[in-house]
Amino acid sequence: MSILPPNHWSARSHNILAEQSLLNRRALLGKGAALAGAGLGAATAGVSGAAAEPLKDEKWSLEFGSTIPAVQERSPFEKNVVRTLSNPNGEMRNSHARTQHQLLGGTLTPNSQFFTISHCGVPNIDPAKHKLVIHGKVRQPLEFTLDTLARYPMVTRTAFVECAGNSAPLFSNQPMQITCGAIHGLVSNAEWSGVRLSTLLEEAGVDPTAKWLVAEGADAQLLTRSVPIKKAMDDCLIVLYQNGERLMPGNGYPMRLLVPGYQGNMNVKHVRRIKVIDQPAYTFFETKNYSQILPGGKTWRFNFLMQVKSFITYPTLGHQLKEPGFYNISGVAYSGNGRISKVMVSADGGKSWGEAALQGSVNDKSFTRFNMPWRWDGQPAVITSRAWDESGASQPLRAEFISARGQTSEPVTNPLLFPSQHYNSLTSWGIDSKGEIKHVYA
Amino acid sequence: MSILPPNHWSARSHNILAEQSLLNRRALLGKGAALAGAGLGAATAGVSGAAAEPLKDEKWSLEFGSTIPAVQERSPFEKNVVRTLSNPNGEMRNSHARTQHQLLGGTLTPNSQFFTISHCGVPNIDPAKHKLVIHGKVRQPLEFTLDTLARYPMVTRTAFVECAGNSAPLFSNQPMQITCGAIHGLVSNAEWSGVRLSTLLEEAGVDPTAKWLVAEGADAQLLTRSVPIKKAMDDCLIVLYQNGERLMPGNGYPMRLLVPGYQGNMNVKHVRRIKVIDQPAYTFFETKNYSQILPGGKTWRFNFLMQVKSFITYPTLGHQLKEPGFYNISGVAYSGNGRISKVMVSADGGKSWGEAALQGSVNDKSFTRFNMPWRWDGQPAVITSRAWDESGASQPLRAEFISARGQTSEPVTNPLLFPSQHYNSLTSWGIDSKGEIKHVYA
Repeated sequence: MSILPPNHWSARSHNILAEQSLLNRRALLGKGAALAGAGLGAATAGVSGAAAEPLKDEKWSLEFGSTIPAVQERSPFEKNVVRTLSNPNGEMRNSHARTQHQLLGGTLTPNSQFFTISHCGVPNIDPAKHKLVIHGKVRQPLEFTLDTLARYPMVTRTAFVECAGNSAPLFSNQPMQITCGAIHGLVSNAEWSGVRLSTLLEEAGVDPTAKWLVAEGADAQLLTRSVPIKKAMDDCLIVLYQNGERLMPGNGYPMRLLVPGYQGNMNVKHVRRIKVIDQPAYTFFETKNYSQILPGGKTWRFNFLMQVKSFITYPTLGHQLKEPGFYNISGVAYSGNGRISKVMVSADGGKSWGEAALQGSVNDKSFTRFNMPWRWDGQPAVITSRAWDESGASQPLRAEFISARGQTSEPVTNPLLFPSQHYNSLTSWGIDSKGEIKHVYA
Repeated sequence: MSILPPNHWSARSHNILAEQSLLNRRALLGKGAALAGAGLGAATAGVSGAAAEPLKDEKWSLEFGSTIPAVQERSPFEKNVVRTLSNPNGEMRNSHARTQHQLLGGTLTPNSQFFTISHCGVPNIDPAKHKLVIHGKVRQPLEFTLDTLARYPMVTRTAFVECAGNSAPLFSNQPMQITCGAIHGLVSNAEWSGVRLSTLLEEAGVDPTAKWLVAEGADAQLLTRSVPIKKAMDDCLIVLYQNGERLMPGNGYPMRLLVPGYQGNMNVKHVRRIKVIDQPAYTFFETKNYSQILPGGKTWRFNFLMQVKSFITYPTLGHQLKEPGFYNISGVAYSGNGRISKVMVSADGGKSWGEAALQGSVNDKSFTRFNMPWRWDGQPAVITSRAWDESGASQPLRAEFISARGQTSEPVTNPLLFPSQHYNSLTSWGIDSKGEIKHVYA
């Protein structure tokens, strides 16, 4: 299964897991009244009279609205939808802006909400002065401006970008009471358009002895990361557009390297130099910062691929279930290996599972939205998700993951203090009998 | 052909059209030096020395950047990327904000740039007070708030929305010298997430005698449009999210009806009432404003479907080809019938054609980006595109289209004066020997 039709939801049946009341979709469609009785009763009282009445509360029905702006902005009622900042005063250190997935829907992260990590602030680059150079072990060094790049064959694809340190709070030995976005906000998903790096490398003429390249950014951090030539020739892009418009300043304006499925830091922003070399450059950001220390002190070198992962976005901490009845459990799944093949959801902490529906296009190395109908009986419940990808890989269960990768020996309260990376086990949310939601380990 | 792999570009060969020099992709990849010689020479001079020098112009490499904002905004260098407004002072009449496709890339229209038409300005709706009522020929009238809708099974899909009056300037008997966005800016494309209208209608229990519904918006226009029940049950949505975030105010906040592939006006924004009925409502906006008058005075009633269409976005009026050589002709194609199956591109005004590459997911009733490599020899050229969809339909040639649908008898200078709708013939751009681009009829 790689691509699902848009009507996939209604085209497949779901398991009925009676013990946890994950709702069967066909049963739902056949029993509208039963649905209303099962929790939406208050919302679905007869309103035929009310519908014909003047709607006095709705002043927007009675007056001319505001002028259309040239650049559209979101409703003032959505001002709470913001990225959360680790360094809001811009002190001279690294900064994180995390996507609050629990406030969003669909598969794309709007550019305004796409996560950013900067080690030296956000540069204000003049695109007319920015150049990309390809040199090193090539037949002919090349220099590109934004104008010359625009003339090359362009491609469009979706891809997630995830910081290797995303989800690090899950290495805590006690579940931290923080939102889905505070845990998983260092991954986002977009449509990218740009030029294949292979097109440019082939024009430069790569020397047969070349095995790696090192890419450098133009901001003050001068981030440099090594990328295997094989990956560069496979699916890397020099990206110019993000979700249809020019790249955001915090996501690499005016051009960035996209290394689909590999750790975020390798997707060098503001890329200005690519040197073709015969061995890795062993830079600071691949030998210290992004080498994972394992229990026992060993370190994995060049563990680039972001493995298959999923997390529920609704309902999670900060949401509240107001009454028993029907709910839609929803979240995102993705894998650096390729397409998502299956997402299973549990509402009893992993004792039993039902297969979620995947809608829209299930794209390579991209977010896939999953949805699972669930009827909450008002009793305590633990919801969690687990994803599989087309390579056959699945998310490890927590016990298995912690055994291999470790956890903190004491509860930790500051999410900046976690050293570990590449968490891809499960995330679970406990719902108590009042409908309040906490982060739990299951 | 429905879905193409991301590496589709390199996986297929292109026709070589020697007489117009549409470039063969394999030839390009095999001949980097030839490419440089064919136009990018100036841009690809050896720069190995320069690359190792300090980059004095690039002050952003030498200083700490700005603080990461909670809501990310585009670069100050992109301030010219705005929608163009037909009523910038907000006079009490209808207003259009057109997407400037020639400044964008990819398939998605960023929410800030998504087109808007409002007849009574943009309402500022309090989502806590907004309700959707379904009533009429149903077993049980239902009322939904944003909170209750969030509990229903949700789906995610992409779809274009196009005003029936989009591209109306092409009914002029002389080509108007306006940009791609001024011609085609009343269509945009997004990822939408929401609840299937069929789910809600099935819960309400539609009477077997019901054949239509009429949907009403909550703003002061009180727009009402009739939709066949068959279409409503097929793929209509009540949309809550647009490109991952809540709907924009100018695109229906907090909820809109999505009627994929049907004329834009039917996708009722700020939808607050859906009445199930046994015949069309024959409202103003379906009997006067959106009924097309044909040559001879006849009118097509209920001509809802937006037919297959494509247009080039680069290079078009406002761009300039600075020198002969290689260019990437790029544009978008879409159809209300379903998926795009093929886009052909001509660089000699339609005498000969080459098949363009389609990247990424080719989605149902959605923009598909096409790309065509082309080597400009410096002589006058006329570029144009023609799309086919999976139903077998294709864009009619201009002579055929005008013969059936008419054109103005005199040149027209004001694009607001065109009465005709559903233009889906070709758009052509003439390039002179200086590389300047004009709108032409071919």
